[in-house]
Amino acid sequence: MPTQWYNIVADMSSRPQPMLNPQTRQPLTEADLTPLFSEQAVRQEFSTERFIDIPDEVRDLYRIWRPTPLVRASGLEKALDTPARIYFKNESISPVGSHKLNSAIPQAYYCKQQGIQHMTTETGAGQWGSALSIACKHFGLDLTVFMVNSSYEQKPYRKSVMRTYGADVIPSPSPVTQVGKELRERFPNTPGSLGMAISEAVELARLQPDTRYGIGSTMNHVCLHQTIIGEEARKQMEIAGDYPDIVIGCFGGGSNFSGIAFPFMRDNLCGNRHTRFIAAEPEACPKLTQGKFEYDYGDTEGLTPLIPMYTLGHDFEPAAIHAGGLRYHGAGAVVSQLMKDHLMEAVDIAQLDSFKAGILFSQVEGIIPAPESTHAICAAIKEAQQAKIEGKDKVILFCLSGHGLIDMASYDRYFAGELNK
Amino acid sequence: MPTQWYNIVADMSSRPQPMLNPQTRQPLTEADLTPLFSEQAVRQEFSTERFIDIPDEVRDLYRIWRPTPLVRASGLEKALDTPARIYFKNESISPVGSHKLNSAIPQAYYCKQQGIQHMTTETGAGQWGSALSIACKHFGLDLTVFMVNSSYEQKPYRKSVMRTYGADVIPSPSPVTQVGKELRERFPNTPGSLGMAISEAVELARLQPDTRYGIGSTMNHVCLHQTIIGEEARKQMEIAGDYPDIVIGCFGGGSNFSGIAFPFMRDNLCGNRHTRFIAAEPEACPKLTQGKFEYDYGDTEGLTPLIPMYTLGHDFEPAAIHAGGLRYHGAGAVVSQLMKDHLMEAVDIAQLDSFKAGILFSQVEGIIPAPESTHAICAAIKEAQQAKIEGKDKVILFCLSGHGLIDMASYDRYFAGELNK
Repeated sequence: MPTQWYNIVADMSSRPQPMLNPQTRQPLTEADLTPLFSEQAVRQEFSTERFIDIPDEVRDLYRIWRPTPLVRASGLEKALDTPARIYFKNESISPVGSHKLNSAIPQAYYCKQQGIQHMTTETGAGQWGSALSIACKHFGLDLTVFMVNSSYEQKPYRKSVMRTYGADVIPSPSPVTQVGKELRERFPNTPGSLGMAISEAVELARLQPDTRYGIGSTMNHVCLHQTIIGEEARKQMEIAGDYPDIVIGCFGGGSNFSGIAFPFMRDNLCGNRHTRFIAAEPEACPKLTQGKFEYDYGDTEGLTPLIPMYTLGHDFEPAAIHAGGLRYHGAGAVVSQLMKDHLMEAVDIAQLDSFKAGILFSQVEGIIPAPESTHAICAAIKEAQQAKIEGKDKVILFCLSGHGLIDMASYDRYFAGELNK
Repeated sequence: MPTQWYNIVADMSSRPQPMLNPQTRQPLTEADLTPLFSEQAVRQEFSTERFIDIPDEVRDLYRIWRPTPLVRASGLEKALDTPARIYFKNESISPVGSHKLNSAIPQAYYCKQQGIQHMTTETGAGQWGSALSIACKHFGLDLTVFMVNSSYEQKPYRKSVMRTYGADVIPSPSPVTQVGKELRERFPNTPGSLGMAISEAVELARLQPDTRYGIGSTMNHVCLHQTIIGEEARKQMEIAGDYPDIVIGCFGGGSNFSGIAFPFMRDNLCGNRHTRFIAAEPEACPKLTQGKFEYDYGDTEGLTPLIPMYTLGHDFEPAAIHAGGLRYHGAGAVVSQLMKDHLMEAVDIAQLDSFKAGILFSQVEGIIPAPESTHAICAAIKEAQQAKIEGKDKVILFCLSGHGLIDMASYDRYFAGELNK
């Protein structure tokens, strides 16, 4: 198991533009963020060091389920009759069923180390919320989770998981916060969004000195923690005697994509590799292919710093698709810069196609994927079909970010023909 | 990974009495069973060979998730402040979330090898049905699953999983079979039982020559397949430099208990070890502690052979507890003989205690256990507390048969105070 996370910023020739303080419009400083995040998280957010040590306490917990398996998807290859060799990194075997625990553990650990008592967070599909719930429980911290209302309704088991782990779960927008109250007035019957839930979690964290906010995606320190995925995958691909021509991750805010992609991208940036990197985003929330690159807020209400990013607008309301974890209006600053510099690509996946891909994968590989992960699977299938047309034996690697066992209601709706495009 | 399963019958000084043909009351022959099971399964059922080779095709599939981790439950030890060292074998990481895949794969494989087209089965909580669904899909067989009605209602996600894997799922008792129709007349509003579902699956398999019945527990060939768990655990305990004083498994029909226990029991039967083996059964279905040892049917309607076993009576209707996989009236013949010969023990666990144990385990180990598995956890906790009272550093090993992510509705009912004892 790797001993360090990889910070891609160190190797980027054009570094991301600075985030801005929303009041002063001046470049953000560490001091602007320390009321919101742990000091260590803030340090990592601004770091330009190439590798950052994983604390022993974090590695001890990683060891419960890491390294995760790198699997040759022979069943999928056979079903597609493709010359491509398809691999996936199986992050679904973590105790909470997704990659999110990779960042939840260090975020809770750094808060604990600093004497923080309480954390707040948002969650879309519930994967991040579940992960931070058990991480907080482990380190003895209280946690309040604002869960996007559409997921709260669609994925009742997720809130049960968080509750079993001891967290408070509140559907967002909620009457608990000022910003929640305002959103409920402005958008009655809104299904909620990650942007709204972030506003609420940030407000609550700001009001209390012993409280910090944990974030599931987009920011550099989160992407940093997730690079454990790709660092392991590099070693495992080497053991398998292969190297990917294409690396694919589903894309919400960028944590899972960055995790699988950045360690391989290092070989493009610093070496002679020409691997393609594909972010698979939902057609209903196409920030990378159809968003604008500009300064925008990370949340709906404008409580976060201004971030240089591809965005659909911080007040964009995505349809209530089942891949709740991908319903976010913007991409992280690092990924956005990489996209702007043509160092990666993006593809939009229609919801029905994503479920079709998920069911095929379930039947040939035995693992029912999370609705988010089906986007990566669908993109991988398209590339494998293209390889067949071209008669090329490409090597495709994708990240299975999580399993869908808690999302079976979504599959039920697909089978019942109730899902729209 | 072990290359052979262990057949404990070879080492038993008093072997199980023969099963009887229900018509002739004569000892059952292989020919009596071949219309129902694959020839290989029948051969294994009667085998007295000590070790039986695992076919390469089965090992190839096992490799997807096996060997499963042996985990030192340090969080649980700390929470209990016990001198005991607690280990668990984590079978929850299989693609279907439980140990059941260990037998589903060989059963489907042997049918396929023999040219069978279709399988039928029963399922309680849905763990076995999910496992056989994906195994059948892999080998290109059709599958009809009779799911105990109470679980069908309580665990809607389970049927979605089976459906995603391509199986037909029918709530039992159903109007599809003759025996189902009769049961519905005789017991209107019955929550169903494993015994009833077995009757239906067996009837359907008997009617069609290209159809065989797959069984999730009790029979010797199923217990045999599950010994992969304990064989791995033996090697892993050796690496950990420890050996269990107590081995615990939850107990429905015996598949998971046998799997973890038999390979260690070999050292009691053939060596100098004095390990204790504890089957943890639900208070609502106490066949081992309060049942009688006698010849009884494996199903409600008396379609199966007569089995020499501890039983509560084949018409016993257990309460609709959430550990649906443990709601079975009898124990397998081998386990029953071991119990009769005082080579193992049993303990009854109350439903509320099982959930309390499950929630503690979730919070300290991060994995939400299946309601069935919470029985083993609860028994392990009791032994660890006893070790504290006695001031002894006992080594306790239990099998975490599966995760409970699909059973969150059960946890919800516990939190809502809706569960009875």
